[in-house]
Amino acid sequence: MDKNIFDIIVDSIYFARKRVMRIFRKDIASRSLGRNISGDITRYIDMVSEKSIIDFLKKSLKSFSILSEEAGFRKYGADYPLIIMDPIDGSFNASRGIPLFSISIAVAYGDTINDIVFGAVCNIATGDIYTGYKDKGAYLNNILIERNIRGFRPVVSIALSQNIYPKMNKFIRISLDKGWKIRVIGSSSLEICMVADGSIDAYIDIRNMLRISDIAASILILNESKGRIYNRSIFNEVFLGEKRYNIVAANSQSLLDEILAVLEFINKSY
Amino acid sequence: MDKNIFDIIVDSIYFARKRVMRIFRKDIASRSLGRNISGDITRYIDMVSEKSIIDFLKKSLKSFSILSEEAGFRKYGADYPLIIMDPIDGSFNASRGIPLFSISIAVAYGDTINDIVFGAVCNIATGDIYTGYKDKGAYLNNILIERNIRGFRPVVSIALSQNIYPKMNKFIRISLDKGWKIRVIGSSSLEICMVADGSIDAYIDIRNMLRISDIAASILILNESKGRIYNRSIFNEVFLGEKRYNIVAANSQSLLDEILAVLEFINKSY
Repeated sequence: MDKNIFDIIVDSIYFARKRVMRIFRKDIASRSLGRNISGDITRYIDMVSEKSIIDFLKKSLKSFSILSEEAGFRKYGADYPLIIMDPIDGSFNASRGIPLFSISIAVAYGDTINDIVFGAVCNIATGDIYTGYKDKGAYLNNILIERNIRGFRPVVSIALSQNIYPKMNKFIRISLDKGWKIRVIGSSSLEICMVADGSIDAYIDIRNMLRISDIAASILILNESKGRIYNRSIFNEVFLGEKRYNIVAANSQSLLDEILAVLEFINKSY
Repeated sequence: MDKNIFDIIVDSIYFARKRVMRIFRKDIASRSLGRNISGDITRYIDMVSEKSIIDFLKKSLKSFSILSEEAGFRKYGADYPLIIMDPIDGSFNASRGIPLFSISIAVAYGDTINDIVFGAVCNIATGDIYTGYKDKGAYLNNILIERNIRGFRPVVSIALSQNIYPKMNKFIRISLDKGWKIRVIGSSSLEICMVADGSIDAYIDIRNMLRISDIAASILILNESKGRIYNRSIFNEVFLGEKRYNIVAANSQSLLDEILAVLEFINKSY
């Protein structure tokens, strides 16, 4: 494992960020370029980010593979390191001019979640960067994230879509009754990292929509920020591939248990 | 009316922003300093922002008055210009480390909304600044906001609290059925400015919680960004004071009408 690759990944993110911010809020950002391998619309801003990162990596790394949300799998001379990336997580926000979207990149030396050794997620609009090193901690702007739960009123960020609204409606109602605060932000990797740094207390996405490229980096960051937790039972036996995921991330076991109990209650009464 | 005061206001915001960002994400930011004149908790981060702005204005302006969310009304030698400010809009986000909060400042030469001649709202975490000059347009980062509706799927940002959830639950359900996207961000002045710049299509806050200091600046910015609209009927006859407001802001008359019709339908069936 070449340590230097982590710095190269971070540099590639800053390189892409500069190019992305140049077109952010311009009409061209949202131009549709057709559908990607997952069936989602690829917009010009996604392509700019992806191309910037790949160009940068091709110049900086001898051999590697890429698994990207837009381009799918591409091999550049070797299977590993495998760079798993979502060039823009929160594409819809990015295309609209809403400053809530990220670049998410993970590095793996194998085909399972456990083989991920590094993750980086950058909040493009603010420049904040989250990094996680397997067994070596998680960082926000190069400062170690230490267990620091600030909330006396838990903040729970959720993913909302039409098909899961009956469930989430009940979830929101119960959350508000408990005195929790609700947010809906629209960039899952960013929201998982916000659980990691303690700025929010939980993130819930049960749309069965998340791809490995959406969460590979942020899950490592979450794991490496001590005390944060996610639904491993649901999330078990993860292999890289086309599978879709749900996630409940929380900054304590007790909050995770409480959320899972609410979701189970809703499932039963649904 | 001294034109230069607008530049001073913007400078005071950048001055405060620097001091606020120094404590953002530090434990001290959320320390409670008791309750302000409106009964809300004043946190250390609110105080730092307010003190920075007032200090700056005292050095830069001969005479003026301030109406601030935390400190209430203060006269420094003259009734006008009246500086109406919310030193941190989105205090809860700011105190938690969620990068979604703003400084909001308006300048008035009279006691009604119509007497506001300038508004500035700064997204603290990104540094984006919105400005509006009465009858002279609205700007984002000094670039004129021109009518540019990007959305084919409307994005509607809402304020959520326990007491209005029965209504908002129905509103969310109907919105999702229409194919609209929902966001919950937690900084009303920022969300109103996001309607102004077209990054979201509507903002709805019917908690009957908004103070004049929350919305004075962003309402002018919205008004000055052509084509954007809000519920004047609800919002009529506004005078500076202790009154609380609801707002529905939208980027077209037709979307505003559609939202108001949904809210009316909910009110009737409620």
